[in-house]
Amino acid sequence: MSLIVVGTMAYDALETPFGKVDKIVGGSATYAAYAAANFVQPVQQISIVGNDFEEAILDDLHSRGVQTDGVEKVADKPSFFWSGRYHLDMNSRDTLVTDLNVLADFNPQVPESYQGSEFLLLGNLMPKLQKQVIDQLTTRPKLIVLDTMNFWMDTAWDDLMVNLKLVDVLLVNDSEARQLTNEFSLVKAARKIMDMGPKYLIIKKGEHGALLFHEDHVFFAPALPLEDVFDPTGAGDTFAGGFMGWLAKTGDISFQNMKTAIIVGSAMASFCVEKFGPQRMQELTKAEIDARIQQFVNLVQFDIELV
Amino acid sequence: MSLIVVGTMAYDALETPFGKVDKIVGGSATYAAYAAANFVQPVQQISIVGNDFEEAILDDLHSRGVQTDGVEKVADKPSFFWSGRYHLDMNSRDTLVTDLNVLADFNPQVPESYQGSEFLLLGNLMPKLQKQVIDQLTTRPKLIVLDTMNFWMDTAWDDLMVNLKLVDVLLVNDSEARQLTNEFSLVKAARKIMDMGPKYLIIKKGEHGALLFHEDHVFFAPALPLEDVFDPTGAGDTFAGGFMGWLAKTGDISFQNMKTAIIVGSAMASFCVEKFGPQRMQELTKAEIDARIQQFVNLVQFDIELV
Repeated sequence: MSLIVVGTMAYDALETPFGKVDKIVGGSATYAAYAAANFVQPVQQISIVGNDFEEAILDDLHSRGVQTDGVEKVADKPSFFWSGRYHLDMNSRDTLVTDLNVLADFNPQVPESYQGSEFLLLGNLMPKLQKQVIDQLTTRPKLIVLDTMNFWMDTAWDDLMVNLKLVDVLLVNDSEARQLTNEFSLVKAARKIMDMGPKYLIIKKGEHGALLFHEDHVFFAPALPLEDVFDPTGAGDTFAGGFMGWLAKTGDISFQNMKTAIIVGSAMASFCVEKFGPQRMQELTKAEIDARIQQFVNLVQFDIELV
Repeated sequence: MSLIVVGTMAYDALETPFGKVDKIVGGSATYAAYAAANFVQPVQQISIVGNDFEEAILDDLHSRGVQTDGVEKVADKPSFFWSGRYHLDMNSRDTLVTDLNVLADFNPQVPESYQGSEFLLLGNLMPKLQKQVIDQLTTRPKLIVLDTMNFWMDTAWDDLMVNLKLVDVLLVNDSEARQLTNEFSLVKAARKIMDMGPKYLIIKKGEHGALLFHEDHVFFAPALPLEDVFDPTGAGDTFAGGFMGWLAKTGDISFQNMKTAIIVGSAMASFCVEKFGPQRMQELTKAEIDARIQQFVNLVQFDIELV
């Protein structure tokens, strides 16, 4: 199976209570690809980079089975740049700088070689651009997952509503689910969102784990309790990449397998936050991943006999 | 097996976004007893009530196997009274009134008939009074669980530290765990707290579930995603009662069985919040409890085969 990932490839400047970095590779598609490539090849990237984007990162991704035919390279502008500062609780952050740079002209094109891909992950991006990718596909993927954020709810509501009718799974965080529906209860919010289109809904709650909703079913995946969260940047994209990587690897999109995929995504996200940027993802081994997934099994597994 | 429960039996006035009640029975020992009695008899109550405490509540508790020989009845004062208003997120609340009434003179006495009990739940109460109960027991229970709160950390730190060395399990919420240790990371906080005495630590996170720590092990129990939380009053005490009820029923205090006990406690707490005060606990059936525990199994259960 193959997986198309659409999103940003960028540079970030980050400040957390544990330190700061002035320029480190980032972007939703970068994190998603690093996570997904542990499970499936090829990962087919659609993005745009500027004249500052390191060839070494592209080479590293290629070596992991990530294709970049769909990554446009702009010669006369720098890559998208974001700078942010996290608060102590790591759930809230201030955006210090957003330089769109090449992203202002992004016009995603699906290469011919990507056609026929069974899985599509639409990373957080302007809804019109996400739809442009869906429209270019000659066959509908088996599963389309859409990530989005509050900014698009504020600025591109109608486009977002159109997209919700085209996708299978929506990924949002708890405050975004509430904003989408005006419901405080996540259970009520989930029902309303599924009425808007997606058959499955994943609500990410950061350090409090993630919920998967489908019809009347709900599944909960915890976040691993960690000593320290060094840098939460990219954790959500890494989660999405791990989730899609597992589904694409197994080719099984049943609710039962989506539960497993969410655990895999949570495990990948738990690595991501251990170092700044995607560093931890770059050095990860299969043995570490297997051990981490086993930690999740131990974390939630219990026996009960009702008598 | 039998279980001693120490705590308040009281009246509350409650206001939540879903309504208000002017006077409803409450108190940590009341909620804990209602929960525990679903699993173990006798539950041996130690508390104090005033001249307003309804005989019908005591009768109801008796009919469930709750003994009240250790409940002092004061003829010339009303019961402890607490009034509070919850915010929309239900995790924060304002205390409007605290009338100690009979609680000001509480001098807990362990009846002879309670001696030899294997399980002791010290509900949230002034640490000196909690210790007074431990000191009166002629044989140390198999398991002592202590609940406490930030108020005692502010006003009776030294007494609390003494108690921590005497108990097996400490129950606190996340902000209390942070206050006890000055650590933001709950993993680091847990290690420090276990160094203070208790071999087991349960950190309650309200709608975000609960964590159980022991040595290097950690277990996570989710809260059930609910449509509405009508009234969170007593949820923590109900959790504690369900936890201890299960342990006392099974007589098994292994880490593995504590995991199960936390799921049982979480299931009981999920009922408690569905109506005002202990109403939901009073009408609960065995079939409902079994079905709810099965919901928790479905909520977290997943399969994974690592290849």
